[in-house]
Amino acid sequence: MNTAVLYSGGKDSSLIAIILKKIGFNPKLINVNFGVLKSYIPAMISAKSLCFDFSILELDKEILEKGVDIIIKDGFPNNGMDYVHKEVIENLSDLKYDIIADGTRRDDKVPKMTKNEIKSLEDRKNIHYLNLDSFGYKTIDLIVNKFFEFRKEKSNRKNSSDYEVEIRYLIDERGFKSSEIFPEHYQTRVVGFKNR
Amino acid sequence: MNTAVLYSGGKDSSLIAIILKKIGFNPKLINVNFGVLKSYIPAMISAKSLCFDFSILELDKEILEKGVDIIIKDGFPNNGMDYVHKEVIENLSDLKYDIIADGTRRDDKVPKMTKNEIKSLEDRKNIHYLNLDSFGYKTIDLIVNKFFEFRKEKSNRKNSSDYEVEIRYLIDERGFKSSEIFPEHYQTRVVGFKNR
Repeated sequence: MNTAVLYSGGKDSSLIAIILKKIGFNPKLINVNFGVLKSYIPAMISAKSLCFDFSILELDKEILEKGVDIIIKDGFPNNGMDYVHKEVIENLSDLKYDIIADGTRRDDKVPKMTKNEIKSLEDRKNIHYLNLDSFGYKTIDLIVNKFFEFRKEKSNRKNSSDYEVEIRYLIDERGFKSSEIFPEHYQTRVVGFKNR
Repeated sequence: MNTAVLYSGGKDSSLIAIILKKIGFNPKLINVNFGVLKSYIPAMISAKSLCFDFSILELDKEILEKGVDIIIKDGFPNNGMDYVHKEVIENLSDLKYDIIADGTRRDDKVPKMTKNEIKSLEDRKNIHYLNLDSFGYKTIDLIVNKFFEFRKEKSNRKNSSDYEVEIRYLIDERGFKSSEIFPEHYQTRVVGFKNR
């Protein structure tokens, strides 16, 4: 089964990748890029540190522009981020993969596929979709601490590979202040397996 | 971490057990019994065939009686089954376990813990709860077919270890017809690992 994990280099997408591997699949880790910044480098390094295949999925910048339209109109990121994520999942599921997965968690509000959206996706595209809905954030912390070495850092353009990096850039480019829309936050970046 | 899986011998609870094992936990498989019938035998045999520790959690018959009250009043099993399941989870999380898990799936309607119920449980009891919400039924079928040998059989008193067996018995004992409330169904019972 061709298996793809939407991958940022963070602990959540690293965890779903390792779970898939442990239960017998061999996922390729995919970072999505919209041609705005070379934001895939940290994800590529993390994927390599975990010995997974990695590739970049280049998608149309228009998806990101529309996400940014929504974010600027709303004044907060949730709906725009959710829009971009769902477009990414739709595009990923049009490729050769039988199984696609992302690192969204039980406690996540956005981005988040509803059960009906998942059912529709699986039926329309004849694929399997899975995520981390089985797990709460406490349990995820417990498990990633067993498996991974990671760095906790203030998220910035150089250490982050999620959509937010390119979205922030576009917001600033349009003359708005992304720092007022996205709160500063710390992220964990996986840098390898823990020696056990 | 002391880990318990609520276990019936079916494919769903067998899958969550094996996932936990693969990610480094060593779950004990627990079948709940209310003292009505010795319905734990099939679960015990399945657990043994997968080389897991197994034990029986004996709970108060009153839980089951109240579930049956609800089912008879409603004329359908959903709410009563859900009630019994949540009581079982509450009781299980009062024991020595750090992590408790069950085999409920993304597509299941009942029994089913809502996100708020899960959060409340985890906070009140200071435990981790997890289930199979990451997976749809198609994906579960795919994975269990890789791992397990199982038998598909018409569910009956001799081959099933879920709550339904004891609940049906109590319904019949009260002079109602459980066969009119619970539709006849096929179940899969795990009988060992697949040779690969």
